[in-house]
Amino acid sequence: MTPSSTLPPAPPLSPPDRLLCGPGPTNVEPSVLDAMREPMLGHLDPTFHELLLELVEMLRAVYGLEDGVTLPLQATGMSGMETGIMNLVAPGDVVIVGYAGFFGRRIAQMAARHGADVVEVTRDWGEVVPNEALLDALDRRPEARLMAVVHAETSTGAQHPLAELGAALRDRDTLLFADCVTSLGGIPVAFSDWGVDFAYSCTQKALGAPPGMSPIACSGRAFERLQARGHTVPFSFDVELLLDYWVQRPITYHHTAPILHIYALYQALRHTLEEGLAARWARHDDAGRYLQAAIRERGFELLANPDHQLPHLTAVCVPEGVDGPKVQRRLLDEHGIEIGGGLGPDAPPMWRIGLMGPNASIEVADRVLAAFDSVLAGEPTLVRKL
Amino acid sequence: MTPSSTLPPAPPLSPPDRLLCGPGPTNVEPSVLDAMREPMLGHLDPTFHELLLELVEMLRAVYGLEDGVTLPLQATGMSGMETGIMNLVAPGDVVIVGYAGFFGRRIAQMAARHGADVVEVTRDWGEVVPNEALLDALDRRPEARLMAVVHAETSTGAQHPLAELGAALRDRDTLLFADCVTSLGGIPVAFSDWGVDFAYSCTQKALGAPPGMSPIACSGRAFERLQARGHTVPFSFDVELLLDYWVQRPITYHHTAPILHIYALYQALRHTLEEGLAARWARHDDAGRYLQAAIRERGFELLANPDHQLPHLTAVCVPEGVDGPKVQRRLLDEHGIEIGGGLGPDAPPMWRIGLMGPNASIEVADRVLAAFDSVLAGEPTLVRKL
Repeated sequence: MTPSSTLPPAPPLSPPDRLLCGPGPTNVEPSVLDAMREPMLGHLDPTFHELLLELVEMLRAVYGLEDGVTLPLQATGMSGMETGIMNLVAPGDVVIVGYAGFFGRRIAQMAARHGADVVEVTRDWGEVVPNEALLDALDRRPEARLMAVVHAETSTGAQHPLAELGAALRDRDTLLFADCVTSLGGIPVAFSDWGVDFAYSCTQKALGAPPGMSPIACSGRAFERLQARGHTVPFSFDVELLLDYWVQRPITYHHTAPILHIYALYQALRHTLEEGLAARWARHDDAGRYLQAAIRERGFELLANPDHQLPHLTAVCVPEGVDGPKVQRRLLDEHGIEIGGGLGPDAPPMWRIGLMGPNASIEVADRVLAAFDSVLAGEPTLVRKL
Repeated sequence: MTPSSTLPPAPPLSPPDRLLCGPGPTNVEPSVLDAMREPMLGHLDPTFHELLLELVEMLRAVYGLEDGVTLPLQATGMSGMETGIMNLVAPGDVVIVGYAGFFGRRIAQMAARHGADVVEVTRDWGEVVPNEALLDALDRRPEARLMAVVHAETSTGAQHPLAELGAALRDRDTLLFADCVTSLGGIPVAFSDWGVDFAYSCTQKALGAPPGMSPIACSGRAFERLQARGHTVPFSFDVELLLDYWVQRPITYHHTAPILHIYALYQALRHTLEEGLAARWARHDDAGRYLQAAIRERGFELLANPDHQLPHLTAVCVPEGVDGPKVQRRLLDEHGIEIGGGLGPDAPPMWRIGLMGPNASIEVADRVLAAFDSVLAGEPTLVRKL
């Protein structure tokens, strides 16, 4: 055979500097990048197992998980969502999904993909589905296995009142399933206090690590149901097998863990707990509220209902006549700043600005605002606003 | 609520230095670690998409893929295996699996998990299943959808004659499915020339990157069948959706790519192609054969049938009366060298030594041999061998 090595390799990697202020990923905490340069252990090394156990304890603290299990999947937030559904929902089970944005709808689509009987309770983008409407749906379908909402809807910047929903479901048999992709580490999450049964998150937003893992948490009662399930779950996402590998050891081999990403998450969690959760939430709150006030001062409207506005993720409505994607592109090309646009074909025109992890600061907010002003000054239809 | 941040964070990360000479992961190529410190782009950044396309072209060259598709999953090799089965095999399909070790058996288990009608053709650990036996099985079950083998069996160090199997299947309708986890980048793989239809690998062995991704390749005809399938595949492992995200863009959002791992794989592939595939295979061959000769000189037996011995992964039979795991533990504790043991409860007692990626060198082989001699000198039952 002829080796194909006659192909010249691709050019050297030389990505430009970016200030990542979209909906995620955010820039990585410097100490987290340093952690990825520590000597690599084998995944079966006893020292590595100690590290996995420490990591799980830190994750427990960050989720506020008292009774139940937690671990990070080698997966995206989307796979965390799918893992929860596959492990907890059998084909034919009733699942109630409340959504008012892209990611909530994706939960409904994912549940349908796996054969669930999905009841959708929806509101317009930027709103949240009132808990009363969800409870009404449950009264009509009391056999529902799962009630699902997005705690922090990344596509709109709206926050669901999750604590209140958990309180209302306290005596019900239905499990509470929450997307915490954009909330964990940035705003309060109290998994057990609130009565959440399954949650998933990511590493690349408020935790300040690179994308690559999805920390999941599962309540004791949800774990019991998962263990009693009668349907097959893919090997890769079988929570029981993964727990055997991560926690129980000595193990039968499951897979090779993503060691450097685990170092990264370990350090991100350490950094989060050293800062203190309350201080970290306050920092995200301060930076986000500052940005939002400044945006509104400039005459722009925010997409989310003000009663439910997340602090650290802000969706700004693109004014009539302004080319939203062009503004994004100029911010990227001229200022090296990434912000997001609307997600999916039916999203209203918007810019999404995230101040998360190391970027949750007044300084970063000011950099974004200055770049925004500079770019928008060139948009004639906006002169009245600036 | 009370934040749990009163929990003191875990101790700082300080893993000891290790020379990783087990079956994988191997130590990471220094330039690959450097690549992970490059500025992080967002996953929807146009510059990032260019990089994904370059990476796919390099992967195509390393696999020897002419007609078909390739991309790296954000997943382990095990999930690459599962992705292939889930995308190509419907419940009830006949799958012939030839195995003589842990990973081949896992293919059979994985196919059974997803409802396939599995025909097993097995041999003892260290052997390979003769292609004639596989073809006989196919004659008895000509409707078989898939024939699966492990190209380089990580649990035994044996190499399957994959080129010959592909040639024999050339005019058959059955797809050829190959585990290339330990082969890709270390020994010749010629996906299209050999007539392979689906293969999966990993990043942490002969490619010299950290664990975290699974490069898969799929022939044109396998991709057509995959597109025509009538069963549901999990969203996370739907090859068509993943290709939309990686290659086709503009996309609908699928997930957030593991950006730093993609940088790592990009640089590992560049490094591989700069070295040249033929030179890289020769380097792995030289180092491995040198080690094997030295091990045999010391009076030890190798597990694999000599006609099928892999160069870069050597399973050494632990002599009667020697505590294999204790020797491993002493190599780790006293010399900082990781080697592997037997995998799974029915593995014969063995040590597995891998010389892969940056560790495929005479120098590293000599370091392992010196440490081995030093540790074994303390084993009284072995005095005659040393």
